[in-house]
Amino acid sequence: MRYSNLFGKTSKSIQADADSANAKLLTQAGFVNKQMAGVYNYLPLGLRVLTKIQNIIRAEMNAVGGNEILMPTMTQESSYVQTGRDKMDVLFHLKGRDDSELVLNPTHEEVVTPLAQKYTFSYRDLPVSVYQIQNKFRNEPRAKSGLLRGREFNMKDMYSFHVSHEDLDNYYEQVKQAYFKIYTKLGIGDITVLTYASGGVFSKYSHEFQTFAEVGEDTIYFCGKCKVAVNKEIIDDQKGACPECGTSELEERQAIEVGNIFKLADKFSKPFDFEYADSNGKNQLVQMGCYGIGPSRLMGTLVEIFHDEKGIIWPKEVAPYAVHLVSLGADENIKTEAEKLYNQLVEKGVEVLWDDRDASAGAKLADADLIGIPTRLVVSKKTLAEESVELKERNKSEAEMVKMSELLSRI
Amino acid sequence: MRYSNLFGKTSKSIQADADSANAKLLTQAGFVNKQMAGVYNYLPLGLRVLTKIQNIIRAEMNAVGGNEILMPTMTQESSYVQTGRDKMDVLFHLKGRDDSELVLNPTHEEVVTPLAQKYTFSYRDLPVSVYQIQNKFRNEPRAKSGLLRGREFNMKDMYSFHVSHEDLDNYYEQVKQAYFKIYTKLGIGDITVLTYASGGVFSKYSHEFQTFAEVGEDTIYFCGKCKVAVNKEIIDDQKGACPECGTSELEERQAIEVGNIFKLADKFSKPFDFEYADSNGKNQLVQMGCYGIGPSRLMGTLVEIFHDEKGIIWPKEVAPYAVHLVSLGADENIKTEAEKLYNQLVEKGVEVLWDDRDASAGAKLADADLIGIPTRLVVSKKTLAEESVELKERNKSEAEMVKMSELLSRI
Repeated sequence: MRYSNLFGKTSKSIQADADSANAKLLTQAGFVNKQMAGVYNYLPLGLRVLTKIQNIIRAEMNAVGGNEILMPTMTQESSYVQTGRDKMDVLFHLKGRDDSELVLNPTHEEVVTPLAQKYTFSYRDLPVSVYQIQNKFRNEPRAKSGLLRGREFNMKDMYSFHVSHEDLDNYYEQVKQAYFKIYTKLGIGDITVLTYASGGVFSKYSHEFQTFAEVGEDTIYFCGKCKVAVNKEIIDDQKGACPECGTSELEERQAIEVGNIFKLADKFSKPFDFEYADSNGKNQLVQMGCYGIGPSRLMGTLVEIFHDEKGIIWPKEVAPYAVHLVSLGADENIKTEAEKLYNQLVEKGVEVLWDDRDASAGAKLADADLIGIPTRLVVSKKTLAEESVELKERNKSEAEMVKMSELLSRI
Repeated sequence: MRYSNLFGKTSKSIQADADSANAKLLTQAGFVNKQMAGVYNYLPLGLRVLTKIQNIIRAEMNAVGGNEILMPTMTQESSYVQTGRDKMDVLFHLKGRDDSELVLNPTHEEVVTPLAQKYTFSYRDLPVSVYQIQNKFRNEPRAKSGLLRGREFNMKDMYSFHVSHEDLDNYYEQVKQAYFKIYTKLGIGDITVLTYASGGVFSKYSHEFQTFAEVGEDTIYFCGKCKVAVNKEIIDDQKGACPECGTSELEERQAIEVGNIFKLADKFSKPFDFEYADSNGKNQLVQMGCYGIGPSRLMGTLVEIFHDEKGIIWPKEVAPYAVHLVSLGADENIKTEAEKLYNQLVEKGVEVLWDDRDASAGAKLADADLIGIPTRLVVSKKTLAEESVELKERNKSEAEMVKMSELLSRI
């Protein structure tokens, strides 16, 4: 992609929320633009990152047998009356034709439970697991921290249905591992910890995945021995001890919640009378699990973790492009050589953003740092004199000259 | 994919709207399930088709220089007050925090215009074209005909911004051609015609793309010589004549509107004061075009066009899978051979749905016809006796025996 053709340029003047690094940097670098509090437009660079995060999640959900589906945004309120969730404070309400009462789904238990029910008759149809990647709506009292707490935000939500607690437990462990694979791929595996949080009637705990970050709004107590944490909300119930080894030597940390998984058991199957016939023909309530992870919140989290005073430093797996090619100088020969290199890289299947603008070297290099693509290549009069390109990784301070002839095998 | 693992089986008993073939067949075949009037859940088979249609559209929008972005579902009502569209009958209204007035976007002019404005300063930033693929919301008085007229539905909407009418005209023609490429890829190119429809203050006409279909709710007048049509809504203004050759020999046809393009000129740039500085430094209003096409409506249209009394007949380009492998008989050897073939096909990169259930031959073959995957392969005692597989195309009546050894080179 030629930067001159890209919609949404860098801008230090476009107003951004000042309350977080992710809102500020993603806005100034041209990844997102705020529509209103907690609601964002994704510009081409931002959508590329969001899509890559979604695809990493999708691959792991498919690997644990998840069936991808797509449920609607809008649902009849009566389904929420059935579960009692119509009283949720964050629910958006609206009216349809003939004064029908509708809501925008904050999660999809009220949709997926009756849906799975239609296709489940006996134990032979279970277990089954379905997921979707879609925008959710929550009328949060205070939208804040850019992509970290939105009112319209992107989410992957999976729901699994089982014949027994044991089968649910087993699948729950598989998904737990799948989540860690996702965080590892995103480059935050080593700073993301399984965190015990409040459960429900049928399970003592739910589990969150918390990424250490000063700006995180969650306080957790980390056990260095077991590498797990306890959310502050249940630390008193735990008498300040690690639920795994019992030690009270826990470290208080701030963290961002980047996922949560929950054994719902029959919390939703009961109100919908979702039963299956067991092998003796006897009806039993289906046991459910749910598994959430927010691609847009992850995008914000990655920026909080990976940035410096100059801009974003994207992990390779989710960077909008792999290479940021910068041609410096008005000399026609420089543009020709840069274009040749651009075409070679594109042909090789490398994702390249080429800053082909007539702008100053200072502006172009500052923009490259702000945007944060992992590898920067500079073509200038100086580099061409050595038949070379200057290569610099965004996360390193030193640059090196690489011969044009050797470059393609390096990238 | 093994059919036994797929969520959403065929069902003749699940209630479907009786008013259209697409609603009935897509529901019974397990592609979609109705949530409420005009709102559908996409099951795995349905989501695969929808995604393939979206990708065909995406490729053509990228080819005409469209920048893919993603705008929000929810927007402040004040933007609609600015353009006068807050009075639209089909607008969904809702309340945010502090009694703020919000709407669900039925299209995105009120979002995209101020957004493009933020990144456009002079003529050097134009033209620019952005598009998104996303759900739209319209509180239709009567949702009907399955995926053809929904209240929440999927749409690709592109918006282009230009320095002049001439530049807009030129781009408009490019997009027109891109749309025809899409219909051709979907297999409905020869029955889809450019149709003159009512324009606005600044252009005499808008253009629709209409696909001939008895069930279509639009009446159009087709000129066999020019291969264009006139929508009934403007046929009187046209004095019953073809706008291109002037003939009055027009054929009345029913058709489904599968796309529309519109020269907005300054209809939206004016209320938002969206101006650019021309090469003389003088401010001018930006000229806009918009281009809509509905992937979910196209999915419904394809089913209306391509089905018989047994079920759907998907065009290859959008079929959920390329091959429907059916193993018949309880013999262990049959399952082993079918599994071998399944693995070979998957390894070769062929998208296969394998009906591995213990079900009757009649039920399995009827399901294959209902689901409508282009190529059906049957492995049975009879075919194995000849070291063969029975191959049948869904759109042909005769089947043929193909030697196992020759099959892979045939698929």
